[in-house]
Amino acid sequence: MMSVRGLARLAKSRGRWVYSSLESAPLLLELPSHFRNPLQSSPQVVLGCRVIYAWASNAFSTARQQADLRSSSAVEKQVDPFSVVADELSILADRLRSLVVADVPELASAAEYFFKLGVEGKRFRPTVLLLMATALDLPIQRQTSETAVNALSTELRTRQQCIAEITEMIHVASLLHDDVLDDADTRRGIGSLNYVMGNKLAVLAGNFLLSRAFLALASLKNTEVASLLAKVVDHLVTGEIMQMTTTSDQRCSMEYYMEKTYCKTASLISNSCKAVALLAGQSAEVSNLAFEYGKNLGLAFQLIDDVLDFTGTSTSLGKGSLSDIRHGIVTAPILFATEEFPELRVIVNQGFEKSSNVDRALEYLSMSSGIQRTRELAAKHASLASAAIDALPENEDEVVQRSRRALVELTHTVITRTK
Amino acid sequence: MMSVRGLARLAKSRGRWVYSSLESAPLLLELPSHFRNPLQSSPQVVLGCRVIYAWASNAFSTARQQADLRSSSAVEKQVDPFSVVADELSILADRLRSLVVADVPELASAAEYFFKLGVEGKRFRPTVLLLMATALDLPIQRQTSETAVNALSTELRTRQQCIAEITEMIHVASLLHDDVLDDADTRRGIGSLNYVMGNKLAVLAGNFLLSRAFLALASLKNTEVASLLAKVVDHLVTGEIMQMTTTSDQRCSMEYYMEKTYCKTASLISNSCKAVALLAGQSAEVSNLAFEYGKNLGLAFQLIDDVLDFTGTSTSLGKGSLSDIRHGIVTAPILFATEEFPELRVIVNQGFEKSSNVDRALEYLSMSSGIQRTRELAAKHASLASAAIDALPENEDEVVQRSRRALVELTHTVITRTK
Repeated sequence: MMSVRGLARLAKSRGRWVYSSLESAPLLLELPSHFRNPLQSSPQVVLGCRVIYAWASNAFSTARQQADLRSSSAVEKQVDPFSVVADELSILADRLRSLVVADVPELASAAEYFFKLGVEGKRFRPTVLLLMATALDLPIQRQTSETAVNALSTELRTRQQCIAEITEMIHVASLLHDDVLDDADTRRGIGSLNYVMGNKLAVLAGNFLLSRAFLALASLKNTEVASLLAKVVDHLVTGEIMQMTTTSDQRCSMEYYMEKTYCKTASLISNSCKAVALLAGQSAEVSNLAFEYGKNLGLAFQLIDDVLDFTGTSTSLGKGSLSDIRHGIVTAPILFATEEFPELRVIVNQGFEKSSNVDRALEYLSMSSGIQRTRELAAKHASLASAAIDALPENEDEVVQRSRRALVELTHTVITRTK
Repeated sequence: MMSVRGLARLAKSRGRWVYSSLESAPLLLELPSHFRNPLQSSPQVVLGCRVIYAWASNAFSTARQQADLRSSSAVEKQVDPFSVVADELSILADRLRSLVVADVPELASAAEYFFKLGVEGKRFRPTVLLLMATALDLPIQRQTSETAVNALSTELRTRQQCIAEITEMIHVASLLHDDVLDDADTRRGIGSLNYVMGNKLAVLAGNFLLSRAFLALASLKNTEVASLLAKVVDHLVTGEIMQMTTTSDQRCSMEYYMEKTYCKTASLISNSCKAVALLAGQSAEVSNLAFEYGKNLGLAFQLIDDVLDFTGTSTSLGKGSLSDIRHGIVTAPILFATEEFPELRVIVNQGFEKSSNVDRALEYLSMSSGIQRTRELAAKHASLASAAIDALPENEDEVVQRSRRALVELTHTVITRTK
């Protein structure tokens, strides 16, 4: 591994791509962290390490207030994770869009549909991956000239951007196919592609993106990274199968739900974070921290998604789209509620084709602490993600530190988001 | 490259897996071949090299007669390509079936549907690949003990079998997704899976097989082979897109049709033949011959498929399923007929939603030599495939020679088949 001085120099040379217009981005106060092994610690220890704990253990409205409090601290200012990589993200999005449009004009509408800003909110996954690329040190085995170092780091950055593109392609492909599988007619308020253009184009566009992802993956010529992302695609399919084919016991099992959630949501971001680390030649330990960050961030993200499906932007139950439960998909809030009210299990087993069953489930949910406990679980995973960043080898370079703070900030964003 | 003597020894050790029950398989007369560079020669030269030419240039019934004549020759007996690898194929099919059933019981019906014998007739692709594996020499860089050679060749054979499995998985995945795209309700007389079980399961089962194929591919840890097969999946998607989105000019273009046919049918078998060669460490020249064999065999196969769609098992027009033309897919016979009767182009451009247009196209086709010219083109490609085998480095080993003859025999089978 190179020295801290060497890393600082490299990080600055990397900074040229990413931060040109962001030199004055404010700093976030680094809270003392005694936490070094997030994976073996109990949740309590983990949660105690960060200011997150105070608001994570409260219900939604309180969390929001405290987050505001936190950001108004005189010495602590947030890094906006999306702004930090905005320029690079924009290039990446253009490249993805033009890839589709140039090669297959017929899929232009699919490309426009998916690669325009806003469908999925922000570009969550590429943001994480670009930040992770900067947050990890670039190890250089021996002394080389500055030119050689710059060339190496440019090549590495390009390969890491490629992981971000591949990840986005796999993600969008899975959205397209999931739409066919779910018979979804809307996704976040925008008519789904299969509704607008038919199942055929959705299947075809998904296959196209998947095949391009694998071509790009093969071009990296790294068999370990190829295996990781092939495993991700397998997990996505497995997760979908788990969701479509649950037994009665599985429907009420928190363990089954978390495994499915890992497969459907967290596997992609965790394994691509690890891929970014592996491409940089990081140690198994550092690569696993990258993986743990992605895994826990992904789980936190999905748990909040499950809450929002019930609450929407309000704090009241039933204001969300209720899309999951109406499709018979039982998520964490209901599972927690079932622990408190075992009679809810009968309704779960009957299914939710009758809207009266949806209403009854919502009643039980409102009497229970299902929503709150789901938020707490999300906060626990967000905290574990944050701890994984803290556990990375120390690095004094300002650019590296800013990316790490941005990654930590993302763990807050994920659990305080309202849409 | 190793000596002919060394090759013979290796081929015999390979023979143990495949030919245990087939020691007495009859030999096919090797016709003298002066042909060494099939790719740069004119079709006439190529066709002149083999007895194929005589019957290939005639229409179907004559071809059949002459094929019978040929096989009744006193000195020339056929090798049945499917019997040669029957034992190994059976193991491979069981492995594919159990992979699906064991991991995802919910897809058991899909597995039963696709991996049972008979859906696609014989296991065409794995047969070709296993024969190609034996037909190619195994190069050994330096002198090694017999035990080491056996171990190496066992490992190589396992990796080549893996290519056959991957190829079959990609093929079946594409069938499943094509069924969704085509709204097909039958495939060769068996209700298609999406008709029986719905689009969702067809998409999901296809994705499952594709992801398993990529996992298996990644496990081979050969980046060149991974690139080849990623390209294949891209070609399959491209071919499907080309078929779904043709302009008026493209619909009447033979060049466009052949490119689409390469993408949809020939890319998989050609690139997997090449992969088998690359895994064996063959030279670029030999790997390209393997590719050319697969490409031309695939093209010949599809051209005959297009003929059979019109003729079925009879020699009369209109006795086939007419599935392509009814789906608006214009194939070689119609394209050749359009060259002779330009007025047919108007009908082609109108499309075939009206059955009267199908009838009119069939009338023109019957007046033209469209069917015959398609058969001739198929025979030309079969001959090119055969020539690629002839151009392989000489090898005196009997097992290698039998596999090569079986590959040549397959080129005959493909163009004389009636279903």
